[in-house]
Amino acid sequence: MSARLLRVEVHPDSLFGPENMPYGVFAPPEGEFRVGVRLGNTVLDLVVLLGDPIFARRDLNAFLAAGPARWRTVRDRLRELAETELPVDALHPVDAVDLALPVRIGDYVDFYASIDHATNLGRLFRPDSEPLLPNWRHLPVGYHGRAGTVVVSETPVIRPQGQRRTDSGAPEFGPSQRLDIEAELGFVVGTGSPLGVPVGVDEFAEHVFGVALVNDWSARDIQAWEYQPLGPFLGKSFSTSISAWITPLAALAEARIPLPTQSPEPLPYLRGTDDYGLDIDLTVSWNGEVVAHPPYSRMYWSPAQMLAHLTANGAALRPGDLYASGTISGPEPDQRGSFIELSWGGTRPVTVRGESRTFLADGDEVTITATAPGTAGRRIGLGQVSGRILPARNT
Amino acid sequence: MSARLLRVEVHPDSLFGPENMPYGVFAPPEGEFRVGVRLGNTVLDLVVLLGDPIFARRDLNAFLAAGPARWRTVRDRLRELAETELPVDALHPVDAVDLALPVRIGDYVDFYASIDHATNLGRLFRPDSEPLLPNWRHLPVGYHGRAGTVVVSETPVIRPQGQRRTDSGAPEFGPSQRLDIEAELGFVVGTGSPLGVPVGVDEFAEHVFGVALVNDWSARDIQAWEYQPLGPFLGKSFSTSISAWITPLAALAEARIPLPTQSPEPLPYLRGTDDYGLDIDLTVSWNGEVVAHPPYSRMYWSPAQMLAHLTANGAALRPGDLYASGTISGPEPDQRGSFIELSWGGTRPVTVRGESRTFLADGDEVTITATAPGTAGRRIGLGQVSGRILPARNT
Repeated sequence: MSARLLRVEVHPDSLFGPENMPYGVFAPPEGEFRVGVRLGNTVLDLVVLLGDPIFARRDLNAFLAAGPARWRTVRDRLRELAETELPVDALHPVDAVDLALPVRIGDYVDFYASIDHATNLGRLFRPDSEPLLPNWRHLPVGYHGRAGTVVVSETPVIRPQGQRRTDSGAPEFGPSQRLDIEAELGFVVGTGSPLGVPVGVDEFAEHVFGVALVNDWSARDIQAWEYQPLGPFLGKSFSTSISAWITPLAALAEARIPLPTQSPEPLPYLRGTDDYGLDIDLTVSWNGEVVAHPPYSRMYWSPAQMLAHLTANGAALRPGDLYASGTISGPEPDQRGSFIELSWGGTRPVTVRGESRTFLADGDEVTITATAPGTAGRRIGLGQVSGRILPARNT
Repeated sequence: MSARLLRVEVHPDSLFGPENMPYGVFAPPEGEFRVGVRLGNTVLDLVVLLGDPIFARRDLNAFLAAGPARWRTVRDRLRELAETELPVDALHPVDAVDLALPVRIGDYVDFYASIDHATNLGRLFRPDSEPLLPNWRHLPVGYHGRAGTVVVSETPVIRPQGQRRTDSGAPEFGPSQRLDIEAELGFVVGTGSPLGVPVGVDEFAEHVFGVALVNDWSARDIQAWEYQPLGPFLGKSFSTSISAWITPLAALAEARIPLPTQSPEPLPYLRGTDDYGLDIDLTVSWNGEVVAHPPYSRMYWSPAQMLAHLTANGAALRPGDLYASGTISGPEPDQRGSFIELSWGGTRPVTVRGESRTFLADGDEVTITATAPGTAGRRIGLGQVSGRILPARNT
């Protein structure tokens, strides 16, 4: 066999250099879906390149389940290969492939780990009381979402219908009038854990493979009417978009930063010996105009604390479980990761491409991107998450 | 081939006569897990009996996905076969087989559809206000639970640990001191539905295959501290037990009854042309002593209304999705399906085998059984759901 060889050219400023190499599931033109990594603007076909059947699948789950030793071995090998000439039939321009949902999601949990976001929502919804509820500083508040409606970036979002309160007190049914985004970071579980056995804060790296960008689309009017006393349900379960590329934790070594001060000190099961936050900068674009720069660095609870809390009661983990941070907001007005915050409950419209806006209109497109520090002053990119709003059905 | 033939003897009073025949996943002694049905005290091996590879699996999901025409064909054939002599190698005493979780659960949703239960909990938690919240009579309140911790009957339940409020205001971490049950009926989705397309009330029978008994174990102290504002999380996600046998809807034809009056009239998307409730009587036994008789006949929202609501926003269904009714309670004290109601928030202990009890002690066992009307005055049984409490880890 004498396959033609080629070295993948990566621009020095590329956000997808060899220290990044996120994983995704792609189909080459007229080919089957399989696992690849992104290097510059090229997708490396891991089935062709490594000859390993674990990648000849339409999701990452088998590789996720293989565990951290395997993740390291494969990453080390890919780092080596990225410096060499590679067979051209393993290389595809990123614009020429179809991208699929990279992970078959087990359970999907959404947290509420930004103190600025939780404070903003408290001020909006309960203006006469303390914005943070009494439990907020003691535990990472979270809830289960619908795993079956997690979709890959670029999947259109059909405006949901549902019940909302009216001035008369009786609800009406119709298309949501307060359709919103939530810019979040999601954590993809690799190694599972048995029922009954908590995963400690310091075991985070043994279980979590990597991160995705998440847009947890939210229908605020449906949510406001339904959510008492059991939490959000249909206001969230119509669509949750994630990036097509999963950035391995190993690529985020330079992004590790100390956590913000946590006061009061968390209970012992939430304290780690080497816990960290992540210096990841998000950008939210609304119809192509940048409207916010949410800073992940400000998140109160760490990813490891969220995982330890999630399993403290003995809940099992499965490869492919996804937990998201909740909306990322910073203290400044232009750092807010949802439109209900940016427009302050719809009372202060935002100007987007010359139009005054509060919530999403049909045809609107939202794209969330993010970067993190790499080595030697470079930056690495997280795969983007985009979606366009389609009109509600039958209206 | 001349297999020895035998007719399965079923006692005339058996709750598992030929009009019932629930489905489960079993392993014969030293054999692989596969799909079977229960007839009397015998398990019929569908791989041997029907020679269909759809049953040579360790869950019902492929059969669920096959849809209602297939469900009917198989059931009709089994009804015929039940009247004939069958090869002995297809027959196993129910006590000699291992039973597995019958369904690989996609998403798990728990409703709150009993007006008596919701009223009792409102009185306990908000004694100075209207017990039912304003949305309760307008929509079936529900939320997503953790699919990965749904387990089959007989799986031990390890007492969960978690944060609970103390008198000082600061929380402490430890084993739950208010461990409870919730006696529920669960509905198993067969045919899926695409994202964006609601399933109407009248399409219920096209999508739902059958019912399971559910015990949604609940740690009331963990739940009370964590649940604002995003709903129950770790107070529920440690264990949800379901029966090993799934009773097909077709076996419950005689159990259909009119719904209780719904006032105000539900919005149009919750109105069906032929909607119904189910006359199923549950029995809750605590260490062998019967402590409650929750009547499913009293449930306010129908199974079809719950499904229509769950998908009204376009949420997709997958084969193996499970949605449960929420705790089943009737208006009488001995009809309450949770111990927080039976003991009125722990203030009125219940006598169980001579001991005064409020919540569950280590070693306690709870078994929920149920029966429904069959033809000619007979009754059919739903598979039971049992579980025993093990002590918390490391304490």
